[in-house]
Amino acid sequence: MSKVLVNTLGLGTVGVASFFWGRSSTPADVATESKTDSKNLPAIVNGGNGAPDKALFNPELVKPSQFFKYGFPGPIHDLQNRSEFVSCYNRQTRNPYWVVEHITKESVQRGSGVDRKNSVFKEDEAIPAKFRSRLRDFFRSGYDRGHQAPAADAKFSQVAMDETFYLTNMSPQVGDGFNRDYWAHFEDFARRLTNRYDNVRIMTGPLFLPKRCDDGKYRVTYEVIGSPPNVAVPTHFFKLIVGENNGDDRISVGAFVLPNERIDNTDDLTKYQVPVEALERSTGLELLQKVPFSKKKDLCREVKCEILVREFPKQAKNVLALPGK
Amino acid sequence: MSKVLVNTLGLGTVGVASFFWGRSSTPADVATESKTDSKNLPAIVNGGNGAPDKALFNPELVKPSQFFKYGFPGPIHDLQNRSEFVSCYNRQTRNPYWVVEHITKESVQRGSGVDRKNSVFKEDEAIPAKFRSRLRDFFRSGYDRGHQAPAADAKFSQVAMDETFYLTNMSPQVGDGFNRDYWAHFEDFARRLTNRYDNVRIMTGPLFLPKRCDDGKYRVTYEVIGSPPNVAVPTHFFKLIVGENNGDDRISVGAFVLPNERIDNTDDLTKYQVPVEALERSTGLELLQKVPFSKKKDLCREVKCEILVREFPKQAKNVLALPGK
Repeated sequence: MSKVLVNTLGLGTVGVASFFWGRSSTPADVATESKTDSKNLPAIVNGGNGAPDKALFNPELVKPSQFFKYGFPGPIHDLQNRSEFVSCYNRQTRNPYWVVEHITKESVQRGSGVDRKNSVFKEDEAIPAKFRSRLRDFFRSGYDRGHQAPAADAKFSQVAMDETFYLTNMSPQVGDGFNRDYWAHFEDFARRLTNRYDNVRIMTGPLFLPKRCDDGKYRVTYEVIGSPPNVAVPTHFFKLIVGENNGDDRISVGAFVLPNERIDNTDDLTKYQVPVEALERSTGLELLQKVPFSKKKDLCREVKCEILVREFPKQAKNVLALPGK
Repeated sequence: MSKVLVNTLGLGTVGVASFFWGRSSTPADVATESKTDSKNLPAIVNGGNGAPDKALFNPELVKPSQFFKYGFPGPIHDLQNRSEFVSCYNRQTRNPYWVVEHITKESVQRGSGVDRKNSVFKEDEAIPAKFRSRLRDFFRSGYDRGHQAPAADAKFSQVAMDETFYLTNMSPQVGDGFNRDYWAHFEDFARRLTNRYDNVRIMTGPLFLPKRCDDGKYRVTYEVIGSPPNVAVPTHFFKLIVGENNGDDRISVGAFVLPNERIDNTDDLTKYQVPVEALERSTGLELLQKVPFSKKKDLCREVKCEILVREFPKQAKNVLALPGK
């Protein structure tokens, strides 16, 4: 029976048979074994018939979690506690998942001698090399190394500012018209909130959002920079901004999603406000879930959500990534 | 000084000023406040000059991790311990990150009365609704609900098989030519390994890989199905297969990456073998890191890595997703 069955199943060569029944096969001995004892045929080969005494199989012999004895695969989220922010790094996109910050009216003032010219972009060696974003990934990529926690939010100390230059705080951002312009003004908006709230807490991160294509289907498309391709270029960035005053258990919340592209400075910031739940759905993150609904106010009904266009110093912002500019 | 400075910074309207210095502003009173006391100007507004007595600022007043009092955002990895597999779900792509399985020669035999016709696809209610993949996301999407841990690996009990039908074990897969054909043969290859190894452990999951475009840049492009777009359609799928014999501390390892598209049955399976490290880099996962290099053997040098083309029953595989077929 075995010969016929084996042939029926397309196993008609000795080489294949050795794989099925051999215990000592190596490529060299593939052609030398030819045991075809049907008693050794497992159910999957003989079509599931004839397996003896099913009642005896104990499902507890199947132990899928033993895979982890080889090491837990992750995903690992590399959390870094910095002076001004906490970052959570995504080893797959080699971008942050998010960074969270805390700023106050006092913290955003410049400490004595603190200057971003003293800071240098640096790879984060806490990340295993194979998952690390690298300076050379950004080099000549056409994208800025875009701070998620802005350097200007960490002016209270040089150490704090230097820490914002770790690549685990960076995503590739369009420079002109975005990182150096609208996005910078948006960061400034968040800082100005410290005049209204005792504590401003900000979550910032990349997004990879679908858009509707001509065929009616939705697709996500994003570039990956570096050679070999290593660091994903987000399609959008978000900020979730929370204002909180001492002695008030209510918080003021604004969620914003901006495309990673040139944005006209005349665009209203409110155009980019989104419901927090929409941000949850697109990030997969749970946001402010411990705060009761009744304690959340709309930031843009409390303050005027708008950017103020001012010139930012550009020369130090991204010398390496765009050497021609 | 304050008037001039404020105008220099583009703050020349009373409405904006109220946002900067007001404490009680609402949209209604934006135009009514006009305090412009320069002593209240924070450094960010007055250009960083004149902040008093920097030595007094205590960096420990900046507490970024207090963001988490609102709730930790995640990413959460929803782990599910099933009879035949453990799954780890990605709330952002609404696919598994991975599933790991354990199969043996005995476990892949069909238990009495076990039949996939008794199983139904089901949403996993352990996932919060806003992050859950849904049956209707797949409906008329053109894609199969592709098992990551195959139903046929869980034939030892109906419960085990039923569990493979949770959507947390599914990714959208091309049906004809892939899920119902080459991929199914590949799954069968992994099952046949139970004749060679006492324990076969398999990790399976989706990938979103870049490809080189005409302009020389690398881009990831993938569809998102559902209305609104909800579930990402992977560009590729991987399996990491480990064979292990009792009493032998060496393991045999094969990593494979297959495109989520029709694959010709004549394609050699070895064409899709990749180095484990390449899979680590593209998934962001650490794979088998606890096993010393010297204890890892190449699966495809131990066995013949090839698919065997057999007919699989198609009618029950995906009735809902492709009603026309």
